[in-house]
Amino acid sequence: MAVQAGSNTNIIMRLETDKQKMTFGQIVTAIGDSGGDIVAVDVSRAGKQKTIYDITLTIDPAFSDRIVARLDDLEGIKVINVSDQTMLLHLGGKIEVTPKLRIKNRDDLSRVYTPGVARVSMAIHDDPSRAYSLTIKRNTVAVVSDGTAVLGLGNIGPLAAMPVMEGKAMLFKQLADVDAFPICLDTQDTEEIIETIKRIAPAFGGINLEDISSPRCFEIERRLIEELDIPVFHDDQHGTAVVLLAGLYNAVKLVGKRLEHCKVVLCGVGAAGNACTKILLSAGVTDIIGVDRCGALVRGQSYDNEAWSWYAEHTNPNMETGTLSDVIHGADIFIGVSGPGILKVDDVKKMAPDPIVFAMANPNPEILPEEVEGIVRVMATGRSDYPNQINNVLCFPGLFRGVFDCRASRVTESMKLAAAKAIASVVNDHELNENFIIPSIFNQHVVEKVREAVIEAAYESKVARRRDIRNVELLQGKGFEQNGKAEELIVQGSTN
Amino acid sequence: MAVQAGSNTNIIMRLETDKQKMTFGQIVTAIGDSGGDIVAVDVSRAGKQKTIYDITLTIDPAFSDRIVARLDDLEGIKVINVSDQTMLLHLGGKIEVTPKLRIKNRDDLSRVYTPGVARVSMAIHDDPSRAYSLTIKRNTVAVVSDGTAVLGLGNIGPLAAMPVMEGKAMLFKQLADVDAFPICLDTQDTEEIIETIKRIAPAFGGINLEDISSPRCFEIERRLIEELDIPVFHDDQHGTAVVLLAGLYNAVKLVGKRLEHCKVVLCGVGAAGNACTKILLSAGVTDIIGVDRCGALVRGQSYDNEAWSWYAEHTNPNMETGTLSDVIHGADIFIGVSGPGILKVDDVKKMAPDPIVFAMANPNPEILPEEVEGIVRVMATGRSDYPNQINNVLCFPGLFRGVFDCRASRVTESMKLAAAKAIASVVNDHELNENFIIPSIFNQHVVEKVREAVIEAAYESKVARRRDIRNVELLQGKGFEQNGKAEELIVQGSTN
Repeated sequence: MAVQAGSNTNIIMRLETDKQKMTFGQIVTAIGDSGGDIVAVDVSRAGKQKTIYDITLTIDPAFSDRIVARLDDLEGIKVINVSDQTMLLHLGGKIEVTPKLRIKNRDDLSRVYTPGVARVSMAIHDDPSRAYSLTIKRNTVAVVSDGTAVLGLGNIGPLAAMPVMEGKAMLFKQLADVDAFPICLDTQDTEEIIETIKRIAPAFGGINLEDISSPRCFEIERRLIEELDIPVFHDDQHGTAVVLLAGLYNAVKLVGKRLEHCKVVLCGVGAAGNACTKILLSAGVTDIIGVDRCGALVRGQSYDNEAWSWYAEHTNPNMETGTLSDVIHGADIFIGVSGPGILKVDDVKKMAPDPIVFAMANPNPEILPEEVEGIVRVMATGRSDYPNQINNVLCFPGLFRGVFDCRASRVTESMKLAAAKAIASVVNDHELNENFIIPSIFNQHVVEKVREAVIEAAYESKVARRRDIRNVELLQGKGFEQNGKAEELIVQGSTN
Repeated sequence: MAVQAGSNTNIIMRLETDKQKMTFGQIVTAIGDSGGDIVAVDVSRAGKQKTIYDITLTIDPAFSDRIVARLDDLEGIKVINVSDQTMLLHLGGKIEVTPKLRIKNRDDLSRVYTPGVARVSMAIHDDPSRAYSLTIKRNTVAVVSDGTAVLGLGNIGPLAAMPVMEGKAMLFKQLADVDAFPICLDTQDTEEIIETIKRIAPAFGGINLEDISSPRCFEIERRLIEELDIPVFHDDQHGTAVVLLAGLYNAVKLVGKRLEHCKVVLCGVGAAGNACTKILLSAGVTDIIGVDRCGALVRGQSYDNEAWSWYAEHTNPNMETGTLSDVIHGADIFIGVSGPGILKVDDVKKMAPDPIVFAMANPNPEILPEEVEGIVRVMATGRSDYPNQINNVLCFPGLFRGVFDCRASRVTESMKLAAAKAIASVVNDHELNENFIIPSIFNQHVVEKVREAVIEAAYESKVARRRDIRNVELLQGKGFEQNGKAEELIVQGSTN
């Protein structure tokens, strides 16, 4: 992954050197010998005998450990710290909490704070639904994680999860003007997580669950959806499912098949695997087989994993049994949400004509595209360095933008299907080809299309709590102040 | 309070009118008759029979209820909603969560989010103290309330408390570049509040408790200070105490007395009263008497209120008994943190020469300045429309700026005393007079002086966890990116 993050980066090394044991020339030589190219030298602290240098150098990240080792070996040098550009980019965190307006004088202060704010508080006290117009609730989502399943890194805890949640908050704001704040929980107990989220819910208009390990994530999401009146969305499950379905819509269109007639084999029946299967079932797929460590999941079998039992009951209509290599026979679509190298070239060769392979394991997919070039018709992965990346970033910003704009009380199945269709629709028929079944995350149309589709579906499924805004010009984010008046009246008029 | 918030404001009324029962001319007349002055008329929705108008008009806020009543009385008019400028200022909330840098391309994304962010997460996983350099923790405070004691409004709940906490977050950022996020809790149970705050603590570098009612606030603060490794500060108690002491330092200087020789009578032994007394004791005051509903608190008496018992044991050395009017005899200083009109002119007349009266009850003080003009030598209140406002805004921004810059693990008594001295010092001897004992909250020197004093005291009381930064040029807030490198090295160098 380091390499994928961009090779030949600058790093900054802080070295403590001892004048008597080591000349600066020797340091330069040592760095050069181990593949480093010095950009700048700064003296951080200097003393009679010891000097602390900050040395900036260009190097292939793969070599940075080697250079540190080499320098540490030298007598009279101590490497205090090494940081690269990615690290430096994260200094002090990646988000901040900023006022929407500047308090310029006493009059401003008396309006936004005491004593004026008292009237605003009482207005909400009289009618709690006004919190949606008079506080940040209407546009703010909590990005909540317990740090148990962060990226491919596993259970690294809440502190280490923060940089990921902050990155997510950046994307929410930049792509969809949604205010997102990271809440990393110092507990991994299901009940404690549920009650904690319920207690902090008042400030938020929605909850985005993130990187919570399976099976706890199922119970946590289910209970919160039942017990809170704001939408709760576990992105690792449903974000992945929505973007997968978007990709499949275009993939089957490309190969001239109908999704509901396809045989689908899914490998890795965890959080994402379950959600992907559920959305495929709602999309009309019937012949879908789940495979995990125990082989194909079949009705009648007993599994200790509750999610597997549910899965076996609701899939695999022909009760196919055996390993992945057995059930892959004649499959039109392979979906991998498991681990590296699970799918073999020989398995792919057993698939139906024009095989579609979505190998989404991160960072290393179930099978590498180069291994099946010419064999697979449509290939997608979770990686940014291959075509057709299945990336949640295509879903969550527009989905929450839509949810907030119509004040949906929950995210329904039809809203997810609508989001998937919307994402797929951004790739038009002239553009559609094997290497372009899914739009770029930088395509500005994605958020807008997803937003519109989600709002439409929310009103149809009767979960939108704002007076129908589909014909009213929408006032988003930055627009609040300028269009405050109209917005206020719309909102107040529709409080219920 | 409405009037104090600025008289003659614009309000916007949304009216639904029935063509057949009411002409627009009649509406104009009705508004004019009740003291309204129409600024603009917008049609929001029009139908064959009913029309919805948004009418903007200038009016004395005191009259707005009258005008609504008047219009509602008229047949064929329905007042759907009324909002004034203060309300409009709060639309959509007053703060937002913004990225510190813009993601311009795939390379940026791969650094701030997957896959690059994985290395940052692992760095924190390897050394949790790095969360202070690589996440928002180092500069972010949670402003936590359960909505039980909001301003003078009492127990109005978490949703209604949000506008106040958002206003506080604005002040934190604008005045001291501290990132503050409001957490309004949907529980009023002491244990639940404590455990919830502990569970969400990882993302934060400090906890600012706000508007939590007494006596629960004592236990909550005490336990969190014990059980968390980040500073916990109940602003209603200690912020008030610090600013009060700052004002008293200058008041006694003005009248030529020494604080430690003064007899102090304090009325209202609640959260603020306790904290004010404790800081006065640390400042060397010995003769201080607390008065509450039960009269003067005296050692030996038994009180059901635990805080009162503690108070009786530690104050009133001469064991004076009776009412406020009894114990006020010969007092140099009166401190009111109780309710309106508690202090009578005759009481003030019983005080020692050059009486100092801090009547801080909000919105209506224990005695109005105009009642004791010429009798009281130095008068202070909690209000912005009289001289000498005792306002917490003078303390919390600079205090947390200092706490964050030296990474203090807690706020010690000496740090509070230092903050009070710093605030007082902003008023120099040439400026000091009866109407100017405390600086304006808009004086930019306040934050910087408080910050420096707090940092100094933190290092002296050994609670600062960063390598001594007093001689290093400090890199604050916006400075993080530009000065990121040096900052990173300082921080990494000092991880322990």
